[in-house]
Amino acid sequence: MTRKAVEDVRAIACLGAGPIGGGWAAYFLSQGYDVTSWIFDAAEEERLRGLIDAAWDALTELGLAEGASRDRLTVTTDMAEAVANADFVQESVPEDVELKQGVYERLGRLAPADVAICSSTSGLSMTDIQAKCATPGRTVTGHPFNPPYLMPLVEIVGGARTDPETVAWTGAFFRHAGKAPLVMDREVPGFVATRLQEAVWREALHMVNEGEATVEQIDLAVTNGPGPRWALMGPCMVYHVGGGEGGMRYCLEQFGPALELPWTRLEAPELTDSLTGKMVDGCVEAAGGEDFLTLTRRMNRGLVQVLKARRASGF
Amino acid sequence: MTRKAVEDVRAIACLGAGPIGGGWAAYFLSQGYDVTSWIFDAAEEERLRGLIDAAWDALTELGLAEGASRDRLTVTTDMAEAVANADFVQESVPEDVELKQGVYERLGRLAPADVAICSSTSGLSMTDIQAKCATPGRTVTGHPFNPPYLMPLVEIVGGARTDPETVAWTGAFFRHAGKAPLVMDREVPGFVATRLQEAVWREALHMVNEGEATVEQIDLAVTNGPGPRWALMGPCMVYHVGGGEGGMRYCLEQFGPALELPWTRLEAPELTDSLTGKMVDGCVEAAGGEDFLTLTRRMNRGLVQVLKARRASGF
Repeated sequence: MTRKAVEDVRAIACLGAGPIGGGWAAYFLSQGYDVTSWIFDAAEEERLRGLIDAAWDALTELGLAEGASRDRLTVTTDMAEAVANADFVQESVPEDVELKQGVYERLGRLAPADVAICSSTSGLSMTDIQAKCATPGRTVTGHPFNPPYLMPLVEIVGGARTDPETVAWTGAFFRHAGKAPLVMDREVPGFVATRLQEAVWREALHMVNEGEATVEQIDLAVTNGPGPRWALMGPCMVYHVGGGEGGMRYCLEQFGPALELPWTRLEAPELTDSLTGKMVDGCVEAAGGEDFLTLTRRMNRGLVQVLKARRASGF
Repeated sequence: MTRKAVEDVRAIACLGAGPIGGGWAAYFLSQGYDVTSWIFDAAEEERLRGLIDAAWDALTELGLAEGASRDRLTVTTDMAEAVANADFVQESVPEDVELKQGVYERLGRLAPADVAICSSTSGLSMTDIQAKCATPGRTVTGHPFNPPYLMPLVEIVGGARTDPETVAWTGAFFRHAGKAPLVMDREVPGFVATRLQEAVWREALHMVNEGEATVEQIDLAVTNGPGPRWALMGPCMVYHVGGGEGGMRYCLEQFGPALELPWTRLEAPELTDSLTGKMVDGCVEAAGGEDFLTLTRRMNRGLVQVLKARRASGF
């Protein structure tokens, strides 16, 4: 099977009329693709077009690709028609495993053989979703972060019967399409982003439950503390920069003992040499040769811009 | 004891020449205060002034108060001189409990009786810090988020012998001085922001340790997923908005069962009616009457600005 080169993808089928399906349609239109949206019921078309219209101002401000137009949207209730000429399929039907299995059984027959079929699922396993599909090798998860037309992240992972080539191609395609693909080599519940988000959420619930903080205080702490930094650098690089000249290694030496303090209800793993090595090597690689001062200056310039941006948008 | 009204504070003593002490000096100067920095050794003055100079561009871009000037900085190694005319003392000496106890013993005698003495400590308890202070009622923790000249958050909490009035006054002072004060009614290890940050950090360490994700993937997930939203709205309001018209209540009904899924290694508390009530009430209050669509539009406008801001600053 030879799949089109990612830069030759022109037509995308988006399944689903909800905020995720509609968000994907809006995003792909903004990037200049032809989009065919499959909806379950013709009555959903108005809502779908409303979602796309609501997204368009933001997409315009972020920059439309040449030739991008909402006129390049086709809407149909015929799944065969929706995928007949597609170069890529993004499925966002409701999160019901039996429903999805039925859809993949049909898509496996209807979509051209060389076309990848990608699920927006946030909680189901592709191994389950692809169970009744006759061509599971080209099925893959591509989990967006809501709203998909704004958030860059797409977490990509195959199921047990997905071809590794499909996973790699899908990662390359999303990168080409302007997204930030995160290609995982195995299925992990909650992928990466949801796991990290869920850790914050559960600690927050505990704190509210125990009267240690209110909802208002939780949100105030995040938006005025780690939030603005995390819009720029993730938790690893934030600590790498926080470690000064010594970077992540110094940080782990300095704050390693704090991992045993009750600073959250989640117990830390043991800080072995192997784990320290992975953290240090990962940060050194991510820094790409930028030294402490350069990273700090860039971080602080970014923080100023983020703080100004949120002030300007009424936060 | 009558303390000055927060708007009458003119002179601030900042103790410490490190990134926190220097960052505070830079911030208070930018807000138009007279600042006296106490440093342990005269040789530290150059580093301190370098820190302030490095912060000044960012502070200028964020907006200096009328009359703000680096010329209003005095540097001394004499603690008595540093605090003699202070209306407020911000202490940022190294995180060593015996060292701080000694400093508070001196400050308790040297600082004018009606002046609040505030510690930047991130990990020590004010109950311990104030142990040898003869006037502990006016000592309080005011923990900034690094860098203190940029990040708005200041977590404020008293020790066992702190007067409640000192805690309230310090919160009001930081609000007046342009910060985002979070006033806690009891000491909790890690305050609020560090606890939430630490939950992310420990889940991330587990994932790297188990080979579920790399350092690069952890950071990619946060900066392209929850990070930009958390620069605008905290985790509670993000879910309140994510719940659509039904808000946090719908969100908890819908995703409540997911609290039992292995989406992070941290176990969630039981979602009792009492906890649900606190979460829902807190979000409704925070929304301040704004409905779902208004909140969503504001959130999305903010996201566009944050994404543009980070693009413009080289991320």
